[in-house]
Amino acid sequence: MLKQLKEQVLEANLALPRHHLVTFTWGNVSAIDRQQGLMVIKPSGVEYEHMTLDDMVVVEVESGRVVEGSKKPSSDTDTHRVLYMRFNEIGGIVHTHSRHATIWAQAGLDIPAWGTTHADYFYGAVPCTRKMTDDEIADKYEWQTGEVIVETFAERGLSSKDVPAVLVHSHGPFAWGKDADNAVHNAVVLEEVAYMGIFSQQLTPRLEVMQASLLDKHYLRKHGKNAYYGQ
Amino acid sequence: MLKQLKEQVLEANLALPRHHLVTFTWGNVSAIDRQQGLMVIKPSGVEYEHMTLDDMVVVEVESGRVVEGSKKPSSDTDTHRVLYMRFNEIGGIVHTHSRHATIWAQAGLDIPAWGTTHADYFYGAVPCTRKMTDDEIADKYEWQTGEVIVETFAERGLSSKDVPAVLVHSHGPFAWGKDADNAVHNAVVLEEVAYMGIFSQQLTPRLEVMQASLLDKHYLRKHGKNAYYGQ
Amino acid sequence: MLKQLKEQVLEANLALPRHHLVTFTWGNVSAIDRQQGLMVIKPSGVEYEHMTLDDMVVVEVESGRVVEGSKKPSSDTDTHRVLYMRFNEIGGIVHTHSRHATIWAQAGLDIPAWGTTHADYFYGAVPCTRKMTDDEIADKYEWQTGEVIVETFAERGLSSKDVPAVLVHSHGPFAWGKDADNAVHNAVVLEEVAYMGIFSQQLTPRLEVMQASLLDKHYLRKHGKNAYYGQ
Amino acid sequence: MLKQLKEQVLEANLALPRHHLVTFTWGNVSAIDRQQGLMVIKPSGVEYEHMTLDDMVVVEVESGRVVEGSKKPSSDTDTHRVLYMRFNEIGGIVHTHSRHATIWAQAGLDIPAWGTTHADYFYGAVPCTRKMTDDEIADKYEWQTGEVIVETFAERGLSSKDVPAVLVHSHGPFAWGKDADNAVHNAVVLEEVAYMGIFSQQLTPRLEVMQASLLDKHYLRKHGKNAYYGQ
Repeated sequence: MLKQLKEQVLEANLALPRHHLVTFTWGNVSAIDRQQGLMVIKPSGVEYEHMTLDDMVVVEVESGRVVEGSKKPSSDTDTHRVLYMRFNEIGGIVHTHSRHATIWAQAGLDIPAWGTTHADYFYGAVPCTRKMTDDEIADKYEWQTGEVIVETFAERGLSSKDVPAVLVHSHGPFAWGKDADNAVHNAVVLEEVAYMGIFSQQLTPRLEVMQASLLDKHYLRKHGKNAYYGQ
Repeated sequence: MLKQLKEQVLEANLALPRHHLVTFTWGNVSAIDRQQGLMVIKPSGVEYEHMTLDDMVVVEVESGRVVEGSKKPSSDTDTHRVLYMRFNEIGGIVHTHSRHATIWAQAGLDIPAWGTTHADYFYGAVPCTRKMTDDEIADKYEWQTGEVIVETFAERGLSSKDVPAVLVHSHGPFAWGKDADNAVHNAVVLEEVAYMGIFSQQLTPRLEVMQASLLDKHYLRKHGKNAYYGQ
Repeated sequence: MLKQLKEQVLEANLALPRHHLVTFTWGNVSAIDRQQGLMVIKPSGVEYEHMTLDDMVVVEVESGRVVEGSKKPSSDTDTHRVLYMRFNEIGGIVHTHSRHATIWAQAGLDIPAWGTTHADYFYGAVPCTRKMTDDEIADKYEWQTGEVIVETFAERGLSSKDVPAVLVHSHGPFAWGKDADNAVHNAVVLEEVAYMGIFSQQLTPRLEVMQASLLDKHYLRKHGKNAYYGQ
Repeated sequence: MLKQLKEQVLEANLALPRHHLVTFTWGNVSAIDRQQGLMVIKPSGVEYEHMTLDDMVVVEVESGRVVEGSKKPSSDTDTHRVLYMRFNEIGGIVHTHSRHATIWAQAGLDIPAWGTTHADYFYGAVPCTRKMTDDEIADKYEWQTGEVIVETFAERGLSSKDVPAVLVHSHGPFAWGKDADNAVHNAVVLEEVAYMGIFSQQLTPRLEVMQASLLDKHYLRKHGKNAYYGQ
């Protein structure tokens, strides 16, 4: 069942420690089969070095029901479900506690667009959500985590396609993309710009956001119908 | 004698350089056999790459007497003894000078609970002890180091189970757990949150502690009778 | 065609990830054959681990025409062309988004000469360009990036030989040298001094530039007719 | 000639990149045979990966004359000579531009004793020299570098045995020890305390020096006739 998708999800999960984005079993990647309404996700608390194809869990996105797999899915499964249900174009999701993106999340701040590295992947600041309410935390916490992400994008008029990542306040980053591999790619870039942002601001404390024209140039050089980067 | 415990302690000691927690021979791990009142600990000043099962030293916790082993036990042995005698539930202890936890210890500050990475393992701030007095330093220094840790937990009403680590002022971290492996695990997490805390505070200088409800949610998701993380 | 130059350019490109200067396909190296007016450059968006000699693209510097190669040349090709046309003594160019040099570029600041590590390679501050105008960004962006670099050196009376690197505002570093390998060498050093500069300034916030006599001593110890470093 | 000493010096030089203390050919290690008045030192500008026993250069300490070896000795040879001539107990010397020690040197600041990691090896602050004068830089620069180190220790009443390292202003660290291996060991520790000091001060901006009693305890636990650390 969904063998190819499982392979992609397994491979994307194994890429997390290779890119130094996770410690121990932290972090998880999923991918969706839109036609069947099914997602494949990493099991909860299994070590990366022992993870196999058979550990991958298949979940029905709509209901949250485990359709296949002997292990419990990631505890963050409900967050992934909300994102797949509300962000129609995304095919893969990554959650990590990667150090520097998490630092911004803990500080409760957006990562401003401060350079072309950022502009090549994120069309504007990577937003940080508001704090969740005690009620949201108490009841269906993981589902509500997804809801507060969706709310953040709605309130700011952001497209999940143009800004493929978010910081959950006091928690850490989620990134996504057209598939699991692309989601990991965006998570790596997020970590890069998070690192560079901390020290760019240290050097120039009231650093202004980059020029809109330069943001446009770099983002559109790589995305959309006039892109000319790559082969 | 205690062959299995020795293997666990050796393995846990060897994990320290793998996790980049130690330089040279710094750092040590021990574990206790509660029934026999014996602990196994790393020898003093022996290089990790040459360490074998036979180098492990068996010490009677109550008396401090070396029961087995041709080498001198770690110079921090008396600190471990105090912790085992006063913290009844712990099974393994790690001491390192890991960079970022040591930075907080040198700065003389607690590591506040600033995010869910912290909350998943530590139920509140990781405390930093007061400075030791000249008398404590002059006489039975390593034993008194244990005493000041115990005092810190007593005065703040902390449980060694809920907060499995401490920073000794101007020195560095001790972490513990149900066994040697779990103690190393907590030492790795401590280093992660220590790193992230430095730069979270840099971004938001008067950063408030995380919400109590979120701390509860994450800690209790992984610990206690209602835990649901993992398999 | 230009087989030896291609080998040098391939090798120099592969050196970038080895020196931790690039993530994914970011960064590119080129080298020029001055007699034939041709440059060899990395293809756009190809992964380093799969890059071969046949992927290298030969471009006529004057016209920008691809003379050989089945792949599109790096999107930064026009910046390289301008630099080769205006900086007559350089033989190789590197562009990266290496973390700490990029941090200075994002902060919009020169890297001051703060120590002998810097003075051994750069005869004074590594300059940061002004921001590019909207017009420069809109039309022939990559070419204009080269122009703003050349303008920076002209306005400050700098020689591309004495200061073999620049920071492009809100973007990142370019470094160069007598050949591709030397350009990579300078890019590595730039990253070192960029890192050290951030924290030198943190320790001493209004840190003065190093003494002119010490800058002279170190730069001239390694460069020019009285050099005495090395074999 | 001096085969054993050459082996020690070669091995110590090769240890520098393993400990991440050097980039390219930066850094050098020497050791002295006090009876013969000869030192063995790394050649100038030779890459570590290609360095062999035959590349080591034997220099007469008193005269500076090359006694054996086909290569030029390190350009810092005269600094090593001064240190051997004035610091009678030292057997090996290391010079690097290791990142964090160099940061303190560039900032022109001593590294204060802020914790037991420091106290285990350095009996008080690691001093930073004054700036050198233009005359000292212009004439016999490398020799004068040694002189300013010796002056720093004399003026502050420091013993080269108790504080086995120094920072040369706007330049970088020298460390030493009873032999080449011990000198490298101290250079590694210096880099550790340099790193931790930067961020300890960031967390507590006017951080006081550690207690004298704790400094004594840790230094004397490892050094002198009452030492009890190790086997």
